[in-house]
Amino acid sequence: MLATILHGAGDVRYEPVADPQILKPTDAIIKLAATCICGSDLWPYRGLQPTSGPAAMGHEYCGVLVEVGADVRTVRPGQFVVGSFCISDNTCPHCRFGFPSSCEQREFMSGAQAPFARVPLADGTLVPLAEMPPDDLIPSLLAASDVLGTGWYAAYAANVRPGATVAVVGDGAVGLMGVLAAKQMGAERIIIMSRHKARQDLALDYGATDIVSERAEAGVARIKELTRGIGVDGVLECVGTQESMRQAIQCARPGAMIGYVGVPHGVELDGQSLFFSQTGMLGGPAPVRRFLPRLIELVLQRKINPGKVFDQELPIADVAEGYRSMDARRAIKTLLRV
Amino acid sequence: MLATILHGAGDVRYEPVADPQILKPTDAIIKLAATCICGSDLWPYRGLQPTSGPAAMGHEYCGVLVEVGADVRTVRPGQFVVGSFCISDNTCPHCRFGFPSSCEQREFMSGAQAPFARVPLADGTLVPLAEMPPDDLIPSLLAASDVLGTGWYAAYAANVRPGATVAVVGDGAVGLMGVLAAKQMGAERIIIMSRHKARQDLALDYGATDIVSERAEAGVARIKELTRGIGVDGVLECVGTQESMRQAIQCARPGAMIGYVGVPHGVELDGQSLFFSQTGMLGGPAPVRRFLPRLIELVLQRKINPGKVFDQELPIADVAEGYRSMDARRAIKTLLRV
Repeated sequence: MLATILHGAGDVRYEPVADPQILKPTDAIIKLAATCICGSDLWPYRGLQPTSGPAAMGHEYCGVLVEVGADVRTVRPGQFVVGSFCISDNTCPHCRFGFPSSCEQREFMSGAQAPFARVPLADGTLVPLAEMPPDDLIPSLLAASDVLGTGWYAAYAANVRPGATVAVVGDGAVGLMGVLAAKQMGAERIIIMSRHKARQDLALDYGATDIVSERAEAGVARIKELTRGIGVDGVLECVGTQESMRQAIQCARPGAMIGYVGVPHGVELDGQSLFFSQTGMLGGPAPVRRFLPRLIELVLQRKINPGKVFDQELPIADVAEGYRSMDARRAIKTLLRV
Repeated sequence: MLATILHGAGDVRYEPVADPQILKPTDAIIKLAATCICGSDLWPYRGLQPTSGPAAMGHEYCGVLVEVGADVRTVRPGQFVVGSFCISDNTCPHCRFGFPSSCEQREFMSGAQAPFARVPLADGTLVPLAEMPPDDLIPSLLAASDVLGTGWYAAYAANVRPGATVAVVGDGAVGLMGVLAAKQMGAERIIIMSRHKARQDLALDYGATDIVSERAEAGVARIKELTRGIGVDGVLECVGTQESMRQAIQCARPGAMIGYVGVPHGVELDGQSLFFSQTGMLGGPAPVRRFLPRLIELVLQRKINPGKVFDQELPIADVAEGYRSMDARRAIKTLLRV
């Protein structure tokens, strides 16, 4: 088959590869209903993250199982499944503690920007649907696999409660999903930092109540002003730079939690500052598997529409154009038709 | 009157000062039932924290009010009161959010190592008792003012739940109170890092189930071994050094919270490491005022006995000997009779 391979910075190709196969009896092979490009794919694409040779890209997926290994018990061929970008057994102590993204057998999914993909630990990783979903819900189910689950975790880690005032730092797809999640968790006021019209509009659609287009100190000052000098009850930090983390910390009120889901690149935190600002922090790769059953239910009931975050759709053969669009911020998130 | 003044590193004196007076209409004057020396007093005593001239020491207190300012409404002369080391109005947004230790009008108490002291913002800061407490409960009520409240906050911030396995880093008075608090919050297994017999015994008395006497990497390895490689559900970090914070982080399981209450001195945290270890953090000056009514109730009902943490009692005139004892770790915590 053909699949998406990153050969180096800026060099992504849709090219022939071996068909995925069952390698372990706990594996499954999925025929993707659709796939997509993640903001985190841009780190290696931009050469900002070292790669060791050609890499099979793609970790967001949903679709129909075509084959399962001999030990797979809870899913079977023909079922429509959604899985997390973190492969997990769902039985180890870390999974049971609610953190499947730190599963003792954790792997990160790869090779999903393709028509077929191998999913390890199928029993633990995949959530089957009772029946085939309608086509128009495919983008939303695909979003649950990572971007929605990650935004959801940001809101969870930021301890968003009914009535809360929260800030979202980052207007990428994860930040926008964070807005959706905070709204679902009952936040009354959702402030997003954004200076892009299309992203602002989508944020408002997802439930944002305030847009802050100022950056850095001015952005923090604006959020302080919007909260009568108090700061926000929780922050969803969806970028991962020193600057975005500084903003998150500075606009948080004492006792607020910062849920940070952008992989930190060069972020250093000063213990004494955090102590005296009484800023709480919880981050990490999102334990999406924990949230998946709930997220799938919300999608199937049409209570949320995370699929709207895809503002570009391309045939997978044009995947390189998708990377270019997202890199240039011409697209928020690109869905690839397989 | 005479009071405790720190003149410089190692130089603490009990010497004549002006009697405390009502300076603002929201002040009160308290006649202390007892006072004590805090581990944090040792930072300036050891010259590890800059001081600007002679400092009136002491921030832990309970006793009878002798005078209140014209605007004080909720407490009156003759009442026995306990207050927090953080002065707070108990009405500002930060107080209402549960963080009176970041009150908009916050001050840190001082001058309590004396027979009388001025307490600012008396209405917000002080909790009155319905009647005079029995003498034998004075040490426990005094402990509520800071050391117990701080250990309690460490357990709260570490998200201690019934059945939890927790680690306590630091066997000082705060760490020991952390053991007591974790036990009260239902922790099933409480591991304390300690290599001092007297402190180990008191920890066991307060509910610790395991003692780890190894330090650094060996201590972490031992805790991992005790938890079958999983790590603990929450950590109470009660020291504040880079080394103690490293231990706390390394023995935490993914998703665990670290409640850190030792003022961090030179602690730097790497964002990416915390991200991938999925370690949550919440610290700061303890919002003791929030917990005080509950703590006082537990003491009056004799359900807890935090006063046992005082293993040295001296007349306040011998305060310098108290500092020497605590500095040399001959005493866990010194109560001063006034």
